[in-house]
Amino acid sequence: MANTPFDSSTHPHRRVNPLTNEHVLVSPHRTKRPWQGQTEPPQAVNLPRHDPQCYLCPGNERAGGLRNDAYESTYNFVNDYAAVLPPPGPIAPPSPHPLLTTEPVQGGCDVIVFHPRHDLTLARLSLEEIGKVIEQWCAIYQTRGSQEGIEYVQIFENKGAMMGCSNPHPHGQAWSLSVVPTLPATELANLTKYSLSDPAPSAAPKGPKNRPCLLCEYAHFEIDVPHDTGRVVFKNEHWVALVPWWAIWPFEILLLPYKRHVPSISHLTANEKNSFAQILSNVTKRYDNLFSCSFAYSMGIHQRPVPRPESAALISDEEDEENVAHLHLHFAPPLLRSASVRKFLVGFELMGEPQRDLTPEQAAQRLRDCSEVHYLDGAAEP
Amino acid sequence: MANTPFDSSTHPHRRVNPLTNEHVLVSPHRTKRPWQGQTEPPQAVNLPRHDPQCYLCPGNERAGGLRNDAYESTYNFVNDYAAVLPPPGPIAPPSPHPLLTTEPVQGGCDVIVFHPRHDLTLARLSLEEIGKVIEQWCAIYQTRGSQEGIEYVQIFENKGAMMGCSNPHPHGQAWSLSVVPTLPATELANLTKYSLSDPAPSAAPKGPKNRPCLLCEYAHFEIDVPHDTGRVVFKNEHWVALVPWWAIWPFEILLLPYKRHVPSISHLTANEKNSFAQILSNVTKRYDNLFSCSFAYSMGIHQRPVPRPESAALISDEEDEENVAHLHLHFAPPLLRSASVRKFLVGFELMGEPQRDLTPEQAAQRLRDCSEVHYLDGAAEP
Ligand SMILES: [Zn+2]
Ligand SMILES: [Zn+2]
Repeated sequence: MANTPFDSSTHPHRRVNPLTNEHVLVSPHRTKRPWQGQTEPPQAVNLPRHDPQCYLCPGNERAGGLRNDAYESTYNFVNDYAAVLPPPGPIAPPSPHPLLTTEPVQGGCDVIVFHPRHDLTLARLSLEEIGKVIEQWCAIYQTRGSQEGIEYVQIFENKGAMMGCSNPHPHGQAWSLSVVPTLPATELANLTKYSLSDPAPSAAPKGPKNRPCLLCEYAHFEIDVPHDTGRVVFKNEHWVALVPWWAIWPFEILLLPYKRHVPSISHLTANEKNSFAQILSNVTKRYDNLFSCSFAYSMGIHQRPVPRPESAALISDEEDEENVAHLHLHFAPPLLRSASVRKFLVGFELMGEPQRDLTPEQAAQRLRDCSEVHYLDGAAEP
Repeated sequence: MANTPFDSSTHPHRRVNPLTNEHVLVSPHRTKRPWQGQTEPPQAVNLPRHDPQCYLCPGNERAGGLRNDAYESTYNFVNDYAAVLPPPGPIAPPSPHPLLTTEPVQGGCDVIVFHPRHDLTLARLSLEEIGKVIEQWCAIYQTRGSQEGIEYVQIFENKGAMMGCSNPHPHGQAWSLSVVPTLPATELANLTKYSLSDPAPSAAPKGPKNRPCLLCEYAHFEIDVPHDTGRVVFKNEHWVALVPWWAIWPFEILLLPYKRHVPSISHLTANEKNSFAQILSNVTKRYDNLFSCSFAYSMGIHQRPVPRPESAALISDEEDEENVAHLHLHFAPPLLRSASVRKFLVGFELMGEPQRDLTPEQAAQRLRDCSEVHYLDGAAEP
């Protein structure tokens, strides 16, 4: 076998995620075993438009007796079981041993309801309605990120019973913390490191001070790879959705603006926001169509930790080192073979490193092959 | 609240895992909400002693037509769907872009069956039988780790349907690779870094060259913390089981020898192996007793990557830099509140950093309170 040419769709190998420096073991030869899974029939979709038991539906009562407004668009409120509490917090105690450190954390946890209807998801909202969700994300990022002591606003969505999310009402969350969480902190450190390096010249957009940006470079490379061997799922005027080279989850997607360096959702132009709404609609529809089900996933927005503070007005956008961040979304969906066969990140993957059989290229091909019309709306297609 | 003294069982805070430099967000105030989960009745345990359909039972046929021996103790064979293949492998191809690296990986994947009986688990094996499993782990580590090109032998067990393990027959695996996987590589880098640092003097055992060892120091500190505030679950002559300060999973356990620096299972004395068997039995019994069920978990052994090669005979054990490793086992169990209520690592935890409500100290207390007699054998207790 030493003389066989290497084929990444056949031979076991490892890939590196340059955002984290972590590896994924790819075992493509294992997909040659008989495909035991099947595409399940569509889930029973008999959700009511309004569920009197749902704590997110308009007008309903939440934990602790609070009542939701009779909202007609998006709606947000402070999580009734917030993981962090507002400042001021107590002073950090002395550590009992240097290996046992304690760092008090303050902040706030917001719930962002995407739509009054209990039975919809992003994949079934209109572009205008998705646009309102994006505006709500921008508003939370701006408001929470301007509060004293907040160092990161982590916006995310966790969708589907198999993700432990028992309420199907379309919603996400934003946790605003006095610290930068491990994953975005690691990504920011690697984006900064890359911006200080000297990669080979390319025609990719550049970050602040005309320095190279890891994600601008990566997206620029991917959009030029021919579709039949590439990882791009869908691309529009400003955004691209791709299965990254280093994907861990079978149908993982990285979603980002590729035309210019964009540090945060606050930096998006009106056109870029329209593109964003369109690609969110496109990607979530493809996901649902892949196995004809409401596709479960965790989604997270990574960007500049918080908006530029007023006090930074004296330095230019160019000089602002935090702008090394490049806005991007991760979609981490667990499904592998059907609506009911999922991947488990366990055993070797928990104790060694993540592993996958299906290659990112194969996953991208399957997502490209999915219809752009939602399977539940198929009949309405002309 | 700024004047309130900090209380780690009340106030949100972060802890650092010094083996990985990753954080966990602890939100202990959330455990004050009403306990909604319940202890479920014991699982129906009607497994046969021998299952004709099980590919691990003695004498049965496996995938591809191979047949298991009529083994009477432990049994091992090469995984019929190995994630990696034996060397030699093809040459690494040129990278299409510096951000898209490919590293061919070779190796072997072994299945290690713990016992001929289909219906048992480590928690229900005798100390003598567990001793045989330990000997099998030692043998695989020695054999695979001596093969040319193997850089790490990752021994692990993945147990329980909720971990995606469909076969209850007691077994584990060993993946031997031409690379050191991400997690043990990170841990080894941090152990090395610690050994080169100058922490405050302590009475803890020392690593090679009398340098400090992170895990010797940590275990030494923990065994002296009074039980009512500490994290030790169980301790015997040579080993300690504790819920680490930085635990992610609700009832995560770190298991390690604490009396001296031990780089690998090959370094264990006969007495240390007896202690090892005893603590494995004790910990797995407590786990099953916690929610009166066969407790699901992933377990992994981290240690010196491979045994000292013959060629190293010229340098002393002391001079061997790989001996900076300190043998330890991680248990990552998903259950949170009952046999049927689990933790999901999703949403903020996938996109930001892991988070927990129950503190490690509270988890240790609950595991200390568990009986040392297996709940299914309770009637046999005098
Ligand atoms: Zn960029
Ligand atoms: Zn040590």
